[in-house]
Amino acid sequence: MRRWNGWGDEATVVELPAHGEAFLAELVGPGQRLADASLAQVLAKVPASRLAAHPLVSQDAEDRLRHARGQSLPDWLAMRSGEFGQFPDGVAFPETAEQIRSLMAWAKQQDAVLIPYGGGTSVAGHINPQAGERPILTLSLARMSKLIEVDEDSLIATFGPGASGPQVESQLRARGYTLGHFPQSWELSTLGGWVASRSSGQQSLRYGRIEQLFAGGKVETFAGTLEIPTFPASAAGPDLREVLLGSEGRFGIISEVKVRISRLAEQESFYAVFMPSWGEALRGIRMLAQARVPLSMLRLSNAIETRTQLALAGHPGQIALLEKYLALRGAGADKCMLTFGVTGNRRQNAASLKQAKRLLKGFGGVFSGTLLGKKWAQNRFRFPYLRHGLWAAGYAVDTLETATDWSNVDNLLNQVEASLRDGLAAEGERVHVFTHLSHVYGEGSSIYTTYVFRPGASYEQAMARWQTLKQAASRTIAENRGTISHQHGVGRDHAPYLAAEKGELGMAALQALSSHFDPEQRLVPGVLLQDPA
Amino acid sequence: MRRWNGWGDEATVVELPAHGEAFLAELVGPGQRLADASLAQVLAKVPASRLAAHPLVSQDAEDRLRHARGQSLPDWLAMRSGEFGQFPDGVAFPETAEQIRSLMAWAKQQDAVLIPYGGGTSVAGHINPQAGERPILTLSLARMSKLIEVDEDSLIATFGPGASGPQVESQLRARGYTLGHFPQSWELSTLGGWVASRSSGQQSLRYGRIEQLFAGGKVETFAGTLEIPTFPASAAGPDLREVLLGSEGRFGIISEVKVRISRLAEQESFYAVFMPSWGEALRGIRMLAQARVPLSMLRLSNAIETRTQLALAGHPGQIALLEKYLALRGAGADKCMLTFGVTGNRRQNAASLKQAKRLLKGFGGVFSGTLLGKKWAQNRFRFPYLRHGLWAAGYAVDTLETATDWSNVDNLLNQVEASLRDGLAAEGERVHVFTHLSHVYGEGSSIYTTYVFRPGASYEQAMARWQTLKQAASRTIAENRGTISHQHGVGRDHAPYLAAEKGELGMAALQALSSHFDPEQRLVPGVLLQDPA
Repeated sequence: MRRWNGWGDEATVVELPAHGEAFLAELVGPGQRLADASLAQVLAKVPASRLAAHPLVSQDAEDRLRHARGQSLPDWLAMRSGEFGQFPDGVAFPETAEQIRSLMAWAKQQDAVLIPYGGGTSVAGHINPQAGERPILTLSLARMSKLIEVDEDSLIATFGPGASGPQVESQLRARGYTLGHFPQSWELSTLGGWVASRSSGQQSLRYGRIEQLFAGGKVETFAGTLEIPTFPASAAGPDLREVLLGSEGRFGIISEVKVRISRLAEQESFYAVFMPSWGEALRGIRMLAQARVPLSMLRLSNAIETRTQLALAGHPGQIALLEKYLALRGAGADKCMLTFGVTGNRRQNAASLKQAKRLLKGFGGVFSGTLLGKKWAQNRFRFPYLRHGLWAAGYAVDTLETATDWSNVDNLLNQVEASLRDGLAAEGERVHVFTHLSHVYGEGSSIYTTYVFRPGASYEQAMARWQTLKQAASRTIAENRGTISHQHGVGRDHAPYLAAEKGELGMAALQALSSHFDPEQRLVPGVLLQDPA
Repeated sequence: MRRWNGWGDEATVVELPAHGEAFLAELVGPGQRLADASLAQVLAKVPASRLAAHPLVSQDAEDRLRHARGQSLPDWLAMRSGEFGQFPDGVAFPETAEQIRSLMAWAKQQDAVLIPYGGGTSVAGHINPQAGERPILTLSLARMSKLIEVDEDSLIATFGPGASGPQVESQLRARGYTLGHFPQSWELSTLGGWVASRSSGQQSLRYGRIEQLFAGGKVETFAGTLEIPTFPASAAGPDLREVLLGSEGRFGIISEVKVRISRLAEQESFYAVFMPSWGEALRGIRMLAQARVPLSMLRLSNAIETRTQLALAGHPGQIALLEKYLALRGAGADKCMLTFGVTGNRRQNAASLKQAKRLLKGFGGVFSGTLLGKKWAQNRFRFPYLRHGLWAAGYAVDTLETATDWSNVDNLLNQVEASLRDGLAAEGERVHVFTHLSHVYGEGSSIYTTYVFRPGASYEQAMARWQTLKQAASRTIAENRGTISHQHGVGRDHAPYLAAEKGELGMAALQALSSHFDPEQRLVPGVLLQDPA
């Protein structure tokens, strides 16, 4: 059963190891545990619905509660405290595009606001109902998760928009294919959500971001159905695929998605290399990307993330041995762990591995074999569960991310880390901050930063601390040539910073499109584009 | 000196070999030569300008004549006959973004229409002035061709929008870089034009289309300057780069372009392989693309194009020997020539070559060594000159192109060829038609078709024949899941077919954007988006 107030399935429990707790206590102080609300307590708070009855719409309190929040830290605090604020007035579960259209027409009759809901994994407030006059209808696409068709020559698969990562992959794998899109939210997030929010998967180096995977599809808008045909490429005017990608529900509800798939690769392996210092690691990873070495994944942890990961990994005895070995080979206290993957046929992989090894050795890289790479692959979707382990130990954790050109990566990374590390200094609180580069390109890299802090004495204090930290980091990004999101999207949390990169004129153009497709602004108002002040 | 009534520099002359003429005479009948107008005759037709004087605007008749037409076959017929129709009332040569903005403000005062002009190589009527009440100001970006800045870590170069292919490459090569964008129009076409019309280069398999190369820049619109910052990737809303790409001047005038560049490759070679039949060739090239073999170029001629190329190549003795050899190895009358390139460091290239050879041998491919590959590379920009040789021999030639998914490539190719081959049957005229696939993707391929026909007894008849053929092929594309352009853009000639792929709702969205940026519709009205009927 999916957790109603946290991440993933209840059966999966990830605890913080004892020495991990000691490690954090030394860095930010002993944990501060806050009491959680029970499901029954929250259910009692769900008010009567403001919507009329409709055969496709549930007004059940638990349905409404379970579709009220995403997975941002504010969402976590709301769910844990039981202070959800606004609930949707109903949750619809359409099974066809026709039903989506009829629900949209009905929402208009009801003068309701509509929130499209995929996997509910937003970490930027995309799907949170807002208090207001108009009733709120959340429209879950969970029942539209089927693989509809595969064009085996063109390698295009047609899916319902509500297919989750495992639903996408299991239906494709049965026929010998993969989409290859593995965001960390993969277990719960959905194809439609990936398209709407411009998602990026861990192996985007091989398979591309969702922008490269999304081939076309259908969108139900208040101005009609927009059908985007599939072409391998086109010079016929601006690309409507790219207008839909990242529109976050503001233009319409995606009712069908066509994606570019791949034949299952013959072989896949992941490797870890320890680089002696951040400077050499950064040059090495940049050169790997710019030399077009055909890897499927590249990830570089900075020294403090490397230290943190080794400390939280368990097996302190083995880790101590590894560190001794690495230090002997020149990767000591400042070492940075670089993980990479090769995916393809055996010959291609052997050639890619050789190229990567040769290049990284030139920057002092020490290969650790395949064990840590395997561990990464095994645990690639476990990180979101760790929030539970940390919370139980009395710590709040959040992540944020950006991307920038290589000439600015080091600067922006340092500034973001500093803004968080010093963010609670006024209260005398320390924040533990660490970073990795998870998606690299010829032009630059994403920067993915994790920060751990103590929630304080109350949920209000925890929320205030988060706001301080998030604002400091977001301003730093906006003022230092970073994009406000490389993979999480804009939602409500990042909307105030979007104009810094789109410009006022660009924002007005996006608003013109939103008004074109949704003249009464019923679709998630305030998301992506802020309401006029 | 650039030709005023044809392609390229006057010093370059490409003649049709004698046996080529015989080859065509057999296929479509003896050539029909039409008399050309002289420059003096046409200059005498340029009327007085309707614009006031402006220090940045030339009203010189020859300037106006030289900026009145592109390179489509109708443009060719207009230039050769001397029947230009409308001329621009003036040609501006701004040197800065500031001057572009002041010229736009002045055009507004003059109630003029504005035509941004890059290299004047459009083959779809992008830059042709139209008769009408409002005076016409063509704005040439030729004086904004400098390399402004190189970010050597991020591999981003900033250029003026008017840099031509050779200007781009020579300025980059001097510093060890390349853009790697080589459309066939490369000698004359410009960076800004490539962006505005979604250009694709011959080595897009390695370097990407202009969509992948265009990193950001500045656009002067009537609603203000749109500045698109560079990010390696972003999830922050719809991508404004992709809105500008393909906007063909309807949103604004590009005043600065930032592109993703590459270090010059250590080595580059091209190879020709003869495939025994079209079916095997098609499967082979699809598999090469889908297996992600890291080639830099892939091009597959169908049997009739292969035959035509060998017939027009010169050296009939050598060609006969080659054909004997190929036939012995299994590539006989139905053989299809596949050309591919590898670009990179020596080790990468050796590995790629091995992979490509192994895969193609599985489909019966016969390697012919490097000579034909070298010839392709030497002659890669000469094809547009051949129109002169054909015209002198009494033949008209045009090309058109589309792209579609692999499952539809064979069908669409056949239908397009048939629509042209039979297009003049009512007049008892034959048309020689042949095709290659020039840009391949995992999902599908471009289809590039050349057709040769006799102009008839007059320019009017030639134009009528072209209209018949172009309309038949364009309808066939629109009705058979092809995009109306893979690389030439929409302009005026393809605009009537755009709604077939964008949908009425998509067209309205593009019009909403155009009205947002250009409320008075001064920027190339009728291009991309047709005027309301």
